[in-house]
Amino acid sequence: MINVAVLGYGTVGSGVVEVLSTNHESIAKRAGQEINVKYVLDLREFPGDPVEKILVHDYNVILNDPEVDIVVEVMGGLHPAYEFTKDALLAGKSVASSNKELVAKYGSELLAIAKEKNVNYLFEASVGGGIPIIRPLNQSLTADEITEITGILNGTTNYILSKMTDEGLDFDAVLKKAQEKGYAERNPEADVEGYDACRKIAILASLAYGKQVDYEDIYTEGITKISAADIEYAKKLGAAIKLFGTCKRENGTVYCMVAPFMIDDSHPLYNVNGVFNGIFVNGNMLGDTMFYGRGAGKLPTASAVVSDVVDAAKHKGTNIMTIWDSEKLTLGSMDNFTCRFFARTAAPKSDIEKVFGEVTYVDADIDGELGFITERLSNKEFEDKSANIELINRIRMTF
Amino acid sequence: MINVAVLGYGTVGSGVVEVLSTNHESIAKRAGQEINVKYVLDLREFPGDPVEKILVHDYNVILNDPEVDIVVEVMGGLHPAYEFTKDALLAGKSVASSNKELVAKYGSELLAIAKEKNVNYLFEASVGGGIPIIRPLNQSLTADEITEITGILNGTTNYILSKMTDEGLDFDAVLKKAQEKGYAERNPEADVEGYDACRKIAILASLAYGKQVDYEDIYTEGITKISAADIEYAKKLGAAIKLFGTCKRENGTVYCMVAPFMIDDSHPLYNVNGVFNGIFVNGNMLGDTMFYGRGAGKLPTASAVVSDVVDAAKHKGTNIMTIWDSEKLTLGSMDNFTCRFFARTAAPKSDIEKVFGEVTYVDADIDGELGFITERLSNKEFEDKSANIELINRIRMTF
Repeated sequence: MINVAVLGYGTVGSGVVEVLSTNHESIAKRAGQEINVKYVLDLREFPGDPVEKILVHDYNVILNDPEVDIVVEVMGGLHPAYEFTKDALLAGKSVASSNKELVAKYGSELLAIAKEKNVNYLFEASVGGGIPIIRPLNQSLTADEITEITGILNGTTNYILSKMTDEGLDFDAVLKKAQEKGYAERNPEADVEGYDACRKIAILASLAYGKQVDYEDIYTEGITKISAADIEYAKKLGAAIKLFGTCKRENGTVYCMVAPFMIDDSHPLYNVNGVFNGIFVNGNMLGDTMFYGRGAGKLPTASAVVSDVVDAAKHKGTNIMTIWDSEKLTLGSMDNFTCRFFARTAAPKSDIEKVFGEVTYVDADIDGELGFITERLSNKEFEDKSANIELINRIRMTF
Repeated sequence: MINVAVLGYGTVGSGVVEVLSTNHESIAKRAGQEINVKYVLDLREFPGDPVEKILVHDYNVILNDPEVDIVVEVMGGLHPAYEFTKDALLAGKSVASSNKELVAKYGSELLAIAKEKNVNYLFEASVGGGIPIIRPLNQSLTADEITEITGILNGTTNYILSKMTDEGLDFDAVLKKAQEKGYAERNPEADVEGYDACRKIAILASLAYGKQVDYEDIYTEGITKISAADIEYAKKLGAAIKLFGTCKRENGTVYCMVAPFMIDDSHPLYNVNGVFNGIFVNGNMLGDTMFYGRGAGKLPTASAVVSDVVDAAKHKGTNIMTIWDSEKLTLGSMDNFTCRFFARTAAPKSDIEKVFGEVTYVDADIDGELGFITERLSNKEFEDKSANIELINRIRMTF
């Protein structure tokens, strides 16, 4: 029997207890032994809840219990999650985590400790919720050099963009609806400004290239400037606007960013709508592949955490190789990242053409402005040119 | 260093040699050691090819060389692939295979031998080509009970159906074009009659439920009866026709089949077009997830084989648990599988309604016939009713 302690009895924590109880038998079969939740750590009390009997408030009870093999860290936040995780690994316990913030920041250090102690630090749930992506990256795509990972990594913003597209509403109106429905937080900054997606692409890029990608280095742009008008233009182009977290290797340089992109229907992520996430991976041998599923939610996320618990149970005493060195990966400057740009301006065609040369106009029947698509430009070139004309908005394009 | 022997220097075999050579360094890093191709077995000669020096014609050279750790079986067919695989495992060598026929037929037996000998029998490439699906099923979706796996598992038929849809052509015309382009074999029976998809869904179902699903037991219907007219009707419904391999658990009974289905645009596989494959999985905790990519082709398939080689190298001396007992899974009778049916007939509405009661008519402007959709019926009910009316064709529906 393997004993587990769950740190944090919030949404994901209670989901983990539920998954382990609902699928107890099949999980025991997959893990080769029974999985028992011995402790739940939370500062709160839960009178009447079945976990009442195994609830503890002092982490030392868990840390000092040699019977606890696996610690499930689903508290979120950097502290004390970092200290708790480190102490667990140093005490010879494996840790399964859904904490993207912690993984992005301290992943390489915690993996190194796990390796040294012959235990495991696993974090399938930190990216893409229920979608298996971390383990496939580490264990399945091992024959390939990864040329690109591009994901719709945040369900809230994808829901907002999908609703704006379906109902022709502006960002603020949809955000308000989403908040009422519980699809967006009251303080939505981490989602709508792209910070959440940024941590997730930092994790994926670190694993793809085996070095530390600091999320602070990643150019990050959210969806707050996307308007109903932008979406009208996209529709005219048969395109959709999606918030991408993306890393791409071009001529040996890795570019990494979070930004809204206009994509056409040939893109594998074109049909990833609503709260769903999708992660596109290109390998130099396998070509294009894509993973799709629920990027958040109690049970999907808990399912991913429990798959890590099963893996940790199966690998008791063995460290699963994960390549993520602490050496920092220097990212290519955004200045040099090239793409076509869609832009809108109230200026006349003559001004547009003086600045950008030949462009393709897009007519969405919106009074007092023009939409157009530039040639392929580096971000620096586009910015330099844009200094000479007033733009209403601009969105990068994949096509 | 890990020494590999490749059995069969055809498309996939030469792809494996190419992948191992092109990505030599990154693969060595992932595997924790260098991977060296020590032998290639083929009956033919390859004068001038780099493998000339390591080419052998006698399998015993490989079998009796204790330096060979991993055998790559990419010969296809049941014999002598079965004997070669069994002998390799018994000799303490791991085997990586792309041979769906062999895996479907002898998977459970070969896995049992591998377990006993503390080596591994791995077959990521046997289903979905480059798409990671076998390892995710075994290692990632371990917290879930699998309620459904439905896949577009054959690129040739998906290409044909996509072309028929895009160009309004009939099956025979598109097949001929596909054969000219090399997308379909001169003898296309295994693809177009669904036999290939049948072996693949048998493998996926066996792994999902942990018991032997015999492909001979799986109801299998190909795409040869699908006409341009059927696709016209589908378009009117905003639907697509796809060849599915599917297994589904309903009230404790597993139904498994290969058949064309009409699906609407809410289905995650709706946009899997051309030679691409897609595999949809529903777990009782994680909900819907989908894997997408190139289901065939030299390098994508070889990439999957090499990922198995890496896994076997990392797990030298340890058997990776795979649950696939030899005990046979009794499948639910097709008679009891229920769905709505789309059907076409030259009979008048009165006859249709006498037989099927209330139906929904679909108008595709085709003279001399009517298209209609039945209520949800079991296959038995539908067949019994159909005995009383002459139908031009009928296609099961998912919506």
